[in-house]
Amino acid sequence: MRWTQAHIPTLREDPVEAEVASHRLMLRAGLIRKLSSGVYSYLPLGQRVLLKVIAVIREAMNAAGAQEVLLPALQPEELWKRSGRAEAMGQEMIRFKDRHGKLMVLGPTHEEVITNLVAGELRSYRQLPINLYQIQTKFRDEPRPRFGVIRSSEFLMKDAYSFDRDTAGLDRSYQAMYETYEAIFRRCDLPVLPVLADTGVMGGSDSHEFMVPAAHGEDEVVRCACGYAASRERAVKTAGRDVGAGAPCPQCGKPLALEPAIEVGHIFKLGAKYTQALGATFLDEDGAQKPLIMGCYGIGVSRILPTVIETHHDDAGIQWPAAIAPYTVDIVPLNVQHTPSFDAAQSLYQALRAAGVDAILDDRDDRAGVKLKDADLIGFPIRVVISEKTLAQSQVEVKIRATGQTSFLPLASAAASLPPLVSPLA
Amino acid sequence: MRWTQAHIPTLREDPVEAEVASHRLMLRAGLIRKLSSGVYSYLPLGQRVLLKVIAVIREAMNAAGAQEVLLPALQPEELWKRSGRAEAMGQEMIRFKDRHGKLMVLGPTHEEVITNLVAGELRSYRQLPINLYQIQTKFRDEPRPRFGVIRSSEFLMKDAYSFDRDTAGLDRSYQAMYETYEAIFRRCDLPVLPVLADTGVMGGSDSHEFMVPAAHGEDEVVRCACGYAASRERAVKTAGRDVGAGAPCPQCGKPLALEPAIEVGHIFKLGAKYTQALGATFLDEDGAQKPLIMGCYGIGVSRILPTVIETHHDDAGIQWPAAIAPYTVDIVPLNVQHTPSFDAAQSLYQALRAAGVDAILDDRDDRAGVKLKDADLIGFPIRVVISEKTLAQSQVEVKIRATGQTSFLPLASAAASLPPLVSPLA
Repeated sequence: MRWTQAHIPTLREDPVEAEVASHRLMLRAGLIRKLSSGVYSYLPLGQRVLLKVIAVIREAMNAAGAQEVLLPALQPEELWKRSGRAEAMGQEMIRFKDRHGKLMVLGPTHEEVITNLVAGELRSYRQLPINLYQIQTKFRDEPRPRFGVIRSSEFLMKDAYSFDRDTAGLDRSYQAMYETYEAIFRRCDLPVLPVLADTGVMGGSDSHEFMVPAAHGEDEVVRCACGYAASRERAVKTAGRDVGAGAPCPQCGKPLALEPAIEVGHIFKLGAKYTQALGATFLDEDGAQKPLIMGCYGIGVSRILPTVIETHHDDAGIQWPAAIAPYTVDIVPLNVQHTPSFDAAQSLYQALRAAGVDAILDDRDDRAGVKLKDADLIGFPIRVVISEKTLAQSQVEVKIRATGQTSFLPLASAAASLPPLVSPLA
Repeated sequence: MRWTQAHIPTLREDPVEAEVASHRLMLRAGLIRKLSSGVYSYLPLGQRVLLKVIAVIREAMNAAGAQEVLLPALQPEELWKRSGRAEAMGQEMIRFKDRHGKLMVLGPTHEEVITNLVAGELRSYRQLPINLYQIQTKFRDEPRPRFGVIRSSEFLMKDAYSFDRDTAGLDRSYQAMYETYEAIFRRCDLPVLPVLADTGVMGGSDSHEFMVPAAHGEDEVVRCACGYAASRERAVKTAGRDVGAGAPCPQCGKPLALEPAIEVGHIFKLGAKYTQALGATFLDEDGAQKPLIMGCYGIGVSRILPTVIETHHDDAGIQWPAAIAPYTVDIVPLNVQHTPSFDAAQSLYQALRAAGVDAILDDRDDRAGVKLKDADLIGFPIRVVISEKTLAQSQVEVKIRATGQTSFLPLASAAASLPPLVSPLA
C-alpha cells in the first residue's frame, strides 16, 4: 500500500478521553474511532490487525481439528428461558420485541444456540468428538464501557464448543484447546498466564482464564512460586473467605502474591448443563441415550489488540509483533522530491511485495520528522529509511521497532536481505 | 478434510418448509439450519462457501483501491434523526433502549455511521477520492422472511462508500465499482443483469441494481432488445404509470419484456444527501468548504449462496462454481475396506493438498450409493472415484459436476493432471 492512497489519520495529541496507553495509542495511530459509549469503528489499519489476529486464530483452530461455523446474533429469548439463563444474564443481555411481538435477544454468547443446533444433528457416538467454532460479533450492554475496545458493548469473539461422549473425552478436548490457546497467544507474543477461574454464569465443573498481567488490568490474580495461580474470584470462592496478598497458598501454604491482569481467553468444562436442559442427547455404543458432554472456549478477538499494545509499547508508540502488525515493513524515502531516493524506495517496495512481504511505502511529500514519528507511533516491526545520505553510501537504514536496533544494509541486496529479517519476527 | 472428521449432515428428504430449490438444497446439503423465523446458522460447509465468497469480494475491492474497515452494528438512533431516516426506516429497523435509556438501533445499513466517521477525518481535497468498505452483519426486521437466506433478518453484506470532491469524481468512483461488481459476479459465475433502479429510501440521483434472472425472483425487471433494462419499480416511477409486459420501451418504443429476477447488488450515487445532513465537508483547492460527494455500493454476501444455487443446480443437487465451492475436489474410495483403493485415495488426497487443491476425502465406511449421492447433492466441482474396477486398469474416474462429463485418468499421473483441470473452473 502507498501511504497517500491509504486512510491513516494519526493524531499528534493525546485524546483526553483515553485513560490507558492502549486506548490512547489505538486512537492516535488511527486504528479505531468512537461512535458512541462502548461502540467503536475500526479504521483500515485497525481492520488489518483484526484480520491478522483472525488468521492466527483460524489457522490454530483448524489445525486442532475444529470446524468453523457462523451462528446468528439474533436469538429467541425463549431459548434462554429453557437453559435457565434468561434472568441470570440481567441487563447485560440486549433484548427487544420484533415486529410480531416475539421476544428476541442479541447473543452475548452462544451456548444455547449451538446446543440447540447440535440437538438435532449429533445423534450417534460415531459423530463424536466434535469441536465447532465461530469468529463473530457479540453484544453486551456494558454498565460501564471503558478503555476503548478492552471493555465495549460490541466486540469480536472466537467461541468454540466441544461435544464428547463422556468426561474423559471432555478432558481431552479441553486440554487440546488449552494447548491451542497457548499457541495462539504465543504467536501474538502475549505473555499469558493460565489461571484457575470461577465458572460464574456459565456454570460447569472447571475453568481456566488466560490472563495477561497488566497494570491497568480489571481482574486480579493470586499466584504462588509453587505454581498455583487463580483468579482472585475463584480463590475467594474456594476458600470461602477473602483472599488477598499474603494469604496462604491453598497448595503449599506460603504467602500468595496479588497482581492486576485484562482476560483474553476463558475455557470451561460445562459438562451436561446445557445439553440436558435443551435435550441434546446421543445414542452411545451401549445403546443408551446420554446427554452430550460439552466444553466451551472463548477468545476476545478484538480485545487482543489493546492487550498486545499494553505489553508492546514505549513512549513513542506501539511495537507490533510481526504476526499481527498492520504492515510488516515501512519504507520511508525521507524526501520524495529527491528522485534517486524515491526511485530506490519504490523499487524496494515492489521487490518486497513480490517476495510476499507486507510492506507500506510512505510516499507522502511531508517532513521527515512527521514520517518517522508516524512510523514509531503506528509501530511497524521494521522501518527502512532511504535518504540522500544513505544513498551516498549505497545503503538503506533498517530499524527494528521492538529493540530500537539500527543497522545499514547495502541497497543492492536489501530486497533479498529483508525477508529473512521479517520471518523470525513473525 | 477427511469426511469422517467433518460435520456434513446431509438430508435425504426434501424439507417441507423449503419453497425454492436453493433453500431446499442449502438445507439438504448441510449448509444452513434455521434457528428462528428469518434467522439461520451456517454449518461448516456453508461457512466455507461464505469465506470463499468473502475472499472473492475482498480481493476485487482491494484491487479497486478500496480500503476495508469495520463499522459497528450498534448505532445511536439520534444519528438517524439527523439524516432524516429514523422515521422512513419504519419497523424494518430494530430499535431498543440500552440500560441507560439511550435509544439505539441495529444497523440495517451504514450511510449515517460512515458519514459521521469521515466528517472529522476527511478535511482536505488532497485526501480524496477515497472508498471505504466493510463485510459485516446487517439486521432488518423482515415483515415476511422467506426462501432461507434469500430474505432473512440477519445477513452478511459488503457495503462500500466512496467520497469525492465533485460529481465528476463520483461518476468515476461509481463506474469503477460498477466494473468491480461485474468482475465479482463473473468469478461467482452469476449471470447478472445491471438495470436502472429506483433509489428508494437511500435517496440520491442515480442507481443500478445487479439482478439475476430467476423464476422465483421477488423483483421484476423490464427489458428491451435495444439495451434498455430497468427494475419495474424504476420504470413505473419514470413513466408515472404502470409499466408491464408489452408497454413501450422508453428508449426505442418497442414492446418491453417483463421477467422475475433475487437482487444481489445495488449501487447508488448519493451526492451530498448524507454529507450535508451530517456536516461532512472538506476544504477544496479553491479554499471553499464543500460537502463530500458520496456514493454507496452494496452486495448481499450471504444472498450470493442461494442465488448461485438457483442458477447452478439439477435434480441431483448443487453445481458449485469452483471459485466458491466448499471443496473443489471430492475423492471417493468406493469401498474403504478395500485397502488398495483406500491407500490410493489417501495418496491422491495428500498429493492434491500439497499442490494447494482444496480436496476432501470421503473416508466413510458407507455404501457407494450414499457417497456418490452426497457428492452430487453437495456439488463439488470435481469428483474422483477410486474402486477395485478402476484400479484394475490403474485408473481413477473423474467427473465434472457441472457437465456430468466423465473421463479416466492414469492413477500414477492423477495428482499432476487434476490441478490443471481445477484452475480453469476457478
